[in-house]
Amino acid sequence: MREFSLIAELHRRYGKGHSSIIRGIGDDTAVVRAASGSWSLLTTDLLVEGIHFDRHTASFSEIGYRAAVANLSDIAAMGGTPQYLLIALAVPSGGTRAQVHQLYRGMMAACRPHGVRLIGGDTSASKSGWFLSLALIGTVAPRRALLRKGAQAGDLLYVTGTLGDASIGLTLLNEAASRRYRRGKRGTLSRTHKQFLIQRHLHPTARVKEGRWLSAGRLATAAIDLSDGLSGDLHHLCDESRVGVEVNLAAIPLSPACRAYAQGRRLNPTAVALAGGEDYELLFTVAPRHQARLEREAKRLGFRITNIGTIRPARLGMHARSSKRGSRPLPVTSYEHFI
Amino acid sequence: MREFSLIAELHRRYGKGHSSIIRGIGDDTAVVRAASGSWSLLTTDLLVEGIHFDRHTASFSEIGYRAAVANLSDIAAMGGTPQYLLIALAVPSGGTRAQVHQLYRGMMAACRPHGVRLIGGDTSASKSGWFLSLALIGTVAPRRALLRKGAQAGDLLYVTGTLGDASIGLTLLNEAASRRYRRGKRGTLSRTHKQFLIQRHLHPTARVKEGRWLSAGRLATAAIDLSDGLSGDLHHLCDESRVGVEVNLAAIPLSPACRAYAQGRRLNPTAVALAGGEDYELLFTVAPRHQARLEREAKRLGFRITNIGTIRPARLGMHARSSKRGSRPLPVTSYEHFI
Repeated sequence: MREFSLIAELHRRYGKGHSSIIRGIGDDTAVVRAASGSWSLLTTDLLVEGIHFDRHTASFSEIGYRAAVANLSDIAAMGGTPQYLLIALAVPSGGTRAQVHQLYRGMMAACRPHGVRLIGGDTSASKSGWFLSLALIGTVAPRRALLRKGAQAGDLLYVTGTLGDASIGLTLLNEAASRRYRRGKRGTLSRTHKQFLIQRHLHPTARVKEGRWLSAGRLATAAIDLSDGLSGDLHHLCDESRVGVEVNLAAIPLSPACRAYAQGRRLNPTAVALAGGEDYELLFTVAPRHQARLEREAKRLGFRITNIGTIRPARLGMHARSSKRGSRPLPVTSYEHFI
Repeated sequence: MREFSLIAELHRRYGKGHSSIIRGIGDDTAVVRAASGSWSLLTTDLLVEGIHFDRHTASFSEIGYRAAVANLSDIAAMGGTPQYLLIALAVPSGGTRAQVHQLYRGMMAACRPHGVRLIGGDTSASKSGWFLSLALIGTVAPRRALLRKGAQAGDLLYVTGTLGDASIGLTLLNEAASRRYRRGKRGTLSRTHKQFLIQRHLHPTARVKEGRWLSAGRLATAAIDLSDGLSGDLHHLCDESRVGVEVNLAAIPLSPACRAYAQGRRLNPTAVALAGGEDYELLFTVAPRHQARLEREAKRLGFRITNIGTIRPARLGMHARSSKRGSRPLPVTSYEHFI
């Protein structure tokens, strides 16, 4: 039972359109039009203990922080402003008030810089582990939502920040929690690099400001946030836009810490970045005529953005180009939390 | 760790107001004002296997149906129109596609009569049981939401439908699932009554039409839906409105099936109705000057409503009056799904 095929099937069956629904299931958030004409964004994300988080590698505060960022990032990917949060939480019998408070502290720490307000929720006991489900509501100016569809052949493919850091951070945390690795692999990475990578996993940044900028300036033709990983999410964007792509592997932005980690393990850092999930950076496409303005404004605003490829007609498929191996089909490596 | 005290504490800490938030945590739904002036209603409800439902006494379709009604009823209690549904679902390893589809079929069967559209969700594996979290978004005309606060001394207390049926239905299902009871207590209740009570539990009715009528006609001063039980929910309404109440126990509307069940078990049917949860009827208050219009319109529209008491000043407290025992303090019997 795969997440995407199941959701797609239920969407076909129950998600039948209505004139007020601009986008239903299948984009970063749903987009609906209110009677007054304003556009609302709605998204929900589910975190299950033992699937999405492990209490041995993250504190409750960090678990809450990441949960909120996953939702904030969905709104960011639509170019919207997050506004209201609903929290549904199931607490196992061993759960304490202190742990619940830490979870809330983490969620609200991620939300506060964006002015998001907690307006409701539901709390329950759980017979087993922790379950956390957030629903986040936001707004975007009418006709300015950055959909996954909209990319055109010839558009330039961009990404914010650096890729792959968060997945390496998670690997490092898992290794630290496992005694087998503690002795063997310690010390191959500087403490600074290690802390940077772990923080990129535990305290990722939702690119809300960047998304609003792309929406307000009509700079992007399509956008998605990187939760599954570059390779998987690029497939979603190209599927929805019905286009192909050529990614320039040498251009993928890598942090010095990611390069150091890959070197120490004799890994290809670009392969790590392609497959690594939960970076919560934005992947977006830009018409060539807007490139100069995009880059000028990004520089002025202090946003790190990198051109990593070009959108092509669908018939040319999805490829990755490197100087050594030329152009090859882009692998589908998606990080799916499912059975 | 009690549900209400924990939520109240987190509300104080994180739910600080903003001019756009008409009502945050603490009412049937949150109420927020969009930039355009329209009012949105937002609510979330959580269902956890082994806490809120038991796969041995309800099918997946019935579990889904009840989950949706719990949310629809929250919107109904605000006098609003439900519009959009988000579904977060965690499926244990033994869960099948057929079960997931049945769950959706049940949810959508409850939503379809109200025109509610499925617009998004998240699906995950679960290491243990099923976990279902719904978020429902609706709308209400500005300044027409039926809040829990607003009841005034002298207002008349009304309820829709009949009370206590759903909790008896659940008891009957639990007994049928337990062999001990199957032999001993069978046959004390007619098949028709039994089926009625079980259906009231498995397929409750969200009083959306009644809520919209009360809101549109400015008939109610306050309202709440009966999820915890009359006694518990009446405490919530009186707390928020800062009033007392006198309930006329003889007036509480009981179904013939409820009376027959109570008679067969030598129970007081009114006590069952006072404590029984998940009826999803509306409890509301009406200014005396609107009583005649209320009753006339209800008759014309075919809505069953019953005057079961009177709101009094807070200093007079909360009482229940019966012909036998006179006026006594109303017990706090609330059905809380918590530790």
